[in-house]
Amino acid sequence: MPDTLIHPKPKFAPLKNDRLLRALRFEPVDITPVWMMRQAGRYLPEYQETRAKAGDFLSLCKDTDKATEVTLQPLRRFDLDAAILFSDILTIPDAMGLGLSFEQGEGPKFKYTVRTQSDFEQLPKLDVNDSLGYVMRAVTNIRKELNGSVPLFGFSGSPWTLATYMIEGGSSKDYRYTKEMLYSKPEFLHQILNHVATAVTDYLDAQIVAGAQIIQIFDSWGGALAHREFIEFSHNYNKHIVAELKQRHPQIPVVLFTKGGGLWLDVQVDSQADCLGLDWTMPLDKARQVLIEEQRKLTKKYKKIQRNKSIQGNLDPAVLYGSPSSIRQNVKTMLDDAYATGEKTGYIANLGHGITQWVKPENAKVFIDAVHEYKI
Amino acid sequence: MPDTLIHPKPKFAPLKNDRLLRALRFEPVDITPVWMMRQAGRYLPEYQETRAKAGDFLSLCKDTDKATEVTLQPLRRFDLDAAILFSDILTIPDAMGLGLSFEQGEGPKFKYTVRTQSDFEQLPKLDVNDSLGYVMRAVTNIRKELNGSVPLFGFSGSPWTLATYMIEGGSSKDYRYTKEMLYSKPEFLHQILNHVATAVTDYLDAQIVAGAQIIQIFDSWGGALAHREFIEFSHNYNKHIVAELKQRHPQIPVVLFTKGGGLWLDVQVDSQADCLGLDWTMPLDKARQVLIEEQRKLTKKYKKIQRNKSIQGNLDPAVLYGSPSSIRQNVKTMLDDAYATGEKTGYIANLGHGITQWVKPENAKVFIDAVHEYKI
Repeated sequence: MPDTLIHPKPKFAPLKNDRLLRALRFEPVDITPVWMMRQAGRYLPEYQETRAKAGDFLSLCKDTDKATEVTLQPLRRFDLDAAILFSDILTIPDAMGLGLSFEQGEGPKFKYTVRTQSDFEQLPKLDVNDSLGYVMRAVTNIRKELNGSVPLFGFSGSPWTLATYMIEGGSSKDYRYTKEMLYSKPEFLHQILNHVATAVTDYLDAQIVAGAQIIQIFDSWGGALAHREFIEFSHNYNKHIVAELKQRHPQIPVVLFTKGGGLWLDVQVDSQADCLGLDWTMPLDKARQVLIEEQRKLTKKYKKIQRNKSIQGNLDPAVLYGSPSSIRQNVKTMLDDAYATGEKTGYIANLGHGITQWVKPENAKVFIDAVHEYKI
Repeated sequence: MPDTLIHPKPKFAPLKNDRLLRALRFEPVDITPVWMMRQAGRYLPEYQETRAKAGDFLSLCKDTDKATEVTLQPLRRFDLDAAILFSDILTIPDAMGLGLSFEQGEGPKFKYTVRTQSDFEQLPKLDVNDSLGYVMRAVTNIRKELNGSVPLFGFSGSPWTLATYMIEGGSSKDYRYTKEMLYSKPEFLHQILNHVATAVTDYLDAQIVAGAQIIQIFDSWGGALAHREFIEFSHNYNKHIVAELKQRHPQIPVVLFTKGGGLWLDVQVDSQADCLGLDWTMPLDKARQVLIEEQRKLTKKYKKIQRNKSIQGNLDPAVLYGSPSSIRQNVKTMLDDAYATGEKTGYIANLGHGITQWVKPENAKVFIDAVHEYKI
């Protein structure tokens, strides 16, 4: 791929559907914007087909045309209000040379882990446009192909979440090695997190330059931490990354999604993120109340009116295993909650986590249509 | 074992250390009572030794002398304020004939699952003193051996938690089949839950008759549910079981522990449980504030002063991977939080989940001693 796809900044078609961006900015919306985490995924037969052609999962991520194709597939089926770059949160540790592979039914595995100072010293400082250039090429290509139909999300895992994979060597149930490090060598863990945070910042910056119009940070494992440790080892890094992105790209909205982070909305509100993502454990009316209250406190603290944060979420993806009428009922309840405080915007409908491979595509359509049919 | 161990109700030595019971009742305590979930476990070499003699894990649970032995082992090492019956939450589905086994490093597996009406119809109504008589014999024997030194916890898994194992056939990451049932055949799931709840009630009742002095219900997977579904499919069953136990044994305190349930303290408070267990995601000062506020609301609602609920928890077991000074610092922070509202009782120190196999026993001792050394 020629470098010109990345620099100079390419020109793109004007945006036709800005519903999601309007909701993020608390501007009036006609109906509720909706997208689904992992909307390009295994539940779609056309995805399975493209993936089979690509070979393994990582080859699919690294092939610009195929990554573009699978990104667009759900948009052809459903009336979605955003696209999200097809990629994986583990591209950064992969680019750092840790040897990522996805074994059948096993989840991600790394050949190397980062547990000692010597492991750490072998981690390169990433030039993201070089080692992750394939991601930026995909972003640019997808943005072109979208042709202004809907905005495009770029994304990254949070430093804490990425660090758990790098230290454990894959997924984990109890984060044994990461937490052992946290409680016995906190300074060393901070070294790793700082290193990863720099890469995440550069990575998201480059995605924006390449054409991403919104950014989501996935703190998938933030909820595994104790409350103080969540602040010190996860939130503070996310906050710093968002501040840095806002400095470089003030117009690009950022969504911060901490799985299991509903208890800590009062913590997460202290960041420049425009929107907080929620999983299904947190009722949306309660979330709104917490955010309104926190906004008042911050406004008082900084003696300057603070913009309220919008929210995103939070249907249990398992709802999509149910009947159409049950899905519609659950969507109605979720939207009633989201608008219970009387605010008529500032909300993006989504699942509370990625859609699973077992959902029937027609049920995803019921979800999306039901969101749009709801009268705000 | 002769039936006389169960009936008539055996006589036991008077209780010497009632610190934990006093804290549960909000009576003054000299120092903070402490115990550890899974305190009889793999981190103790003497446990490993007894288990090796018993063969597999279930044989250890079913052998009265060996179950007694491992229950008492941590009390010989540490200054604990309670013992807990050595057993497993899966004894009930095992007794229902689902064929439980523990494969090395694999977690529990069931030979049969409960997913269809016909599966369900094959589940027997348990006579717990018959099919789970080994548990009651262990309870009575442990209580005798304790000789009044500390009180004895009996326990059970919650209906929801047990149902997930019965439906999935083992541990699960996403509860695919259980949630599919919840959202597509909720009435059938309620049938299963009702059946399990009857068994749990009888089981806990029998444990109390056999000598258990406190009961803990482990809702280990309650936190996987969405908030409304938590109320309907987990909390309501726990509430009913506690009410039933209180009817039959008004003096026996009940601890309700929902992993990941910190967000729903306002729900759980609406039960006759004496104490709510918390994992490490919920700060204890915040938990106390929520409970005080909810108590006020309930007092107003019922026009009768409601006794406040005590709390139990919530150190991340991973803290025990750290140095002694780091453990002591974390214990101090936890206790400062627990007593932040000015209440000087109503709190039981514990981990936020079971102690892991990788903890050094001497670090568990640092934890327990640090709790006792803290000046309330």
